[in-house]
Amino acid sequence: MDVISVIRTKRDKGELSPEQIDWVIDAYTRGVVADEQMSALAMAILLNGMNRTEIARWTAAMIASGERMNFDALSRPTADKHSTGGVGDKITLPLAPLVAACGAAVPQLSGRGLGHTGGTLDKLESIPGWRALLSNEEMLHVLDTTGAVICAAGDGLAPADKKLYALRDVTGTVEAIPLIASSIMSKKIAEGTGSLVLDVKVGTGAFMKNIEDARELARTMVGLGTDSGVKTVALLTDMSTPLGLTAGNALEVRESVEVLAGGGPKDVVDLTIALAAEMLAAAGIKDADPAKALADGSAMDVWRRMIAAQGGDPDATLPVAREQHVVTAPSTGVLTRLDAYDIGIAAWRLGAGRARKEDPVQAGAGVELHAKPGDTVTAGQPLLTLHTDTPEKFDYALKSLSEAWDIAPEGTAFTPNPIVLDRIA
Amino acid sequence: MDVISVIRTKRDKGELSPEQIDWVIDAYTRGVVADEQMSALAMAILLNGMNRTEIARWTAAMIASGERMNFDALSRPTADKHSTGGVGDKITLPLAPLVAACGAAVPQLSGRGLGHTGGTLDKLESIPGWRALLSNEEMLHVLDTTGAVICAAGDGLAPADKKLYALRDVTGTVEAIPLIASSIMSKKIAEGTGSLVLDVKVGTGAFMKNIEDARELARTMVGLGTDSGVKTVALLTDMSTPLGLTAGNALEVRESVEVLAGGGPKDVVDLTIALAAEMLAAAGIKDADPAKALADGSAMDVWRRMIAAQGGDPDATLPVAREQHVVTAPSTGVLTRLDAYDIGIAAWRLGAGRARKEDPVQAGAGVELHAKPGDTVTAGQPLLTLHTDTPEKFDYALKSLSEAWDIAPEGTAFTPNPIVLDRIA
Repeated sequence: MDVISVIRTKRDKGELSPEQIDWVIDAYTRGVVADEQMSALAMAILLNGMNRTEIARWTAAMIASGERMNFDALSRPTADKHSTGGVGDKITLPLAPLVAACGAAVPQLSGRGLGHTGGTLDKLESIPGWRALLSNEEMLHVLDTTGAVICAAGDGLAPADKKLYALRDVTGTVEAIPLIASSIMSKKIAEGTGSLVLDVKVGTGAFMKNIEDARELARTMVGLGTDSGVKTVALLTDMSTPLGLTAGNALEVRESVEVLAGGGPKDVVDLTIALAAEMLAAAGIKDADPAKALADGSAMDVWRRMIAAQGGDPDATLPVAREQHVVTAPSTGVLTRLDAYDIGIAAWRLGAGRARKEDPVQAGAGVELHAKPGDTVTAGQPLLTLHTDTPEKFDYALKSLSEAWDIAPEGTAFTPNPIVLDRIA
Repeated sequence: MDVISVIRTKRDKGELSPEQIDWVIDAYTRGVVADEQMSALAMAILLNGMNRTEIARWTAAMIASGERMNFDALSRPTADKHSTGGVGDKITLPLAPLVAACGAAVPQLSGRGLGHTGGTLDKLESIPGWRALLSNEEMLHVLDTTGAVICAAGDGLAPADKKLYALRDVTGTVEAIPLIASSIMSKKIAEGTGSLVLDVKVGTGAFMKNIEDARELARTMVGLGTDSGVKTVALLTDMSTPLGLTAGNALEVRESVEVLAGGGPKDVVDLTIALAAEMLAAAGIKDADPAKALADGSAMDVWRRMIAAQGGDPDATLPVAREQHVVTAPSTGVLTRLDAYDIGIAAWRLGAGRARKEDPVQAGAGVELHAKPGDTVTAGQPLLTLHTDTPEKFDYALKSLSEAWDIAPEGTAFTPNPIVLDRIA
């Protein structure tokens, strides 16, 4: 087997054989196939595609490159969720304790943010004392005692994916559905969950800008999960505008706690309950009522225990940014667009995100929304509040907001997108 | 400027801007753009192409990455030739002294073989004492005093191309016409010749297997040369069967000397004269008669002086391989096919070529042909003689010959391909 023949096969629009896929993933993990060879193959895959058989084998080979976790010893069925990433997407924070409160075990191995979408671990790290890095034993202990755990994925899971993901990031080969799907699913299957709900975001603030691409990605991932014995369902959800009223680390924790307290913005509550229902159904848990578990405080109880189990103080005051800047509405009318991507970029520039993976993030930085599409606004009223510890960044952040909204004349009929756009099972 | 936006432009079928091209070639040469980024771009170029404007700029940027030579101080016009490479292609050896004997200055900066096609320098190095590596001053001296020089290209010419060529070789991105054309032409234009004749090989033993691809490559290169002020002409020539009756280093030198002595196989003589006529016309030299210069010994005189000027002994006995193995014709009839690629692979396996660029080659190894397509053969007559210092390789070489020829019943009408298939100017 040699790598040039593998590259040529895909370059010339052929189908990679199972042997070619197993060999190239293993050889790349071991450093026998060089980065420049893998990036040429990744570009050929991006441009010429892979069929379902190839993607399944590619995913299996990435899983086989590392260890697999096993939750069979737990007394409860496991349920896992993955979001493809969006602006203000704090859903994991209320969702994991909510689903645990309804009877499932929820192991959420999460990541950090890169670019304009935030990372779950960055958000939780704004809670004083909270630790993202747990050993496998610690993780199982938190999961077993509280019902949920949100922590960093260990280095042992799908190392081929880790290496390939870093390579794709610097070679313009991220946007390939077969590679995105196999990257997500190899990690999720290696994590050993029994069921998985995918939240595939669609819109300007998401990776997938149009619903056709999102549907293809969702179908590919659902197929991969199902073929591997993991009960998998995908919701396609709106990411044309940020989720909720905050984008930023501590800002989003605060909003998540509001949801766990029975309040919070309607879109966050609706999506949290919709995903919880899917996760509980996939895990085989009937007769649970997620709305009730939010209202009666049982989800909040799990949250407090889960945060405390990882060293965090659930009662601690969350960090606040040193400086604020208010952006006001320029006219009176109906807000018909408040762009997720532009808000995400602004939050990122204010310090909520990082440009390189070794950069620190500001806990308090971000954007607060005072209106959402469909709301009526009055000229001069606050539309956004920008938060940062580095006020010299306000101008830079404001530049990304110059075309971030549309306001239609008063009385214009406008219906915002529903939060759930489609369901793929 | 950042490399990912350049990669994305070509990945998404856009046109690279002059600024993008200049930047990426310069940044790659300086090591700012990494190999894995350039290989992803090369694959995107291979699959999505470049237009004439892009290829011209790409070539200019590669030329600008290094030094340019200048032959203006010479009293004679310069004429250069480049072959895209074939099996038994020793044409440079008789051609350079022949064209010099007719009045042009012929600077042939040449390469070594890699894979199944031989390298001009490897062939000449079978002459005891001959040196391929000359300083620029030595090169100009040999050229000025003998009229021709065949030597290794210095490291200063188009370093971007050197780096990119080595990368393409290991990433399955060799077979891209824009990259092949710009690689060849950047070196040739940087060499500073006033005119250039391209020998674009077509057939199983060539890089271009069909005449349409060869024509596109030829047109692209002629356009690049013309746009850069180099008078450029291309001949498309047959490479379905080896050139002449030998493939191997010393074997080909011997055959070249026969041609310079006024003998040699007809196809080698015909192609040498056809290319010489083109080179002389492109250099503006009229009334020269290449056939006469072969017949009257004047080309041989230049050869002897040129070899001696580089330390070689033109009268030395050439190395002979230690072992021979004769392959006989299995039946009587008309030889209608003797495959260039299969013979090239056999010669390579016998030791005439190298698998990696640091490998040595055997001077005496190779394949001798006793018949050519169109000849009538008799069952049991010698068809090929294999030469090697490593007889344990005979079996391996014979494997590549298992389907190397076709013999049609006696009396079958068969016309071999003409040597020159087309001309692009």
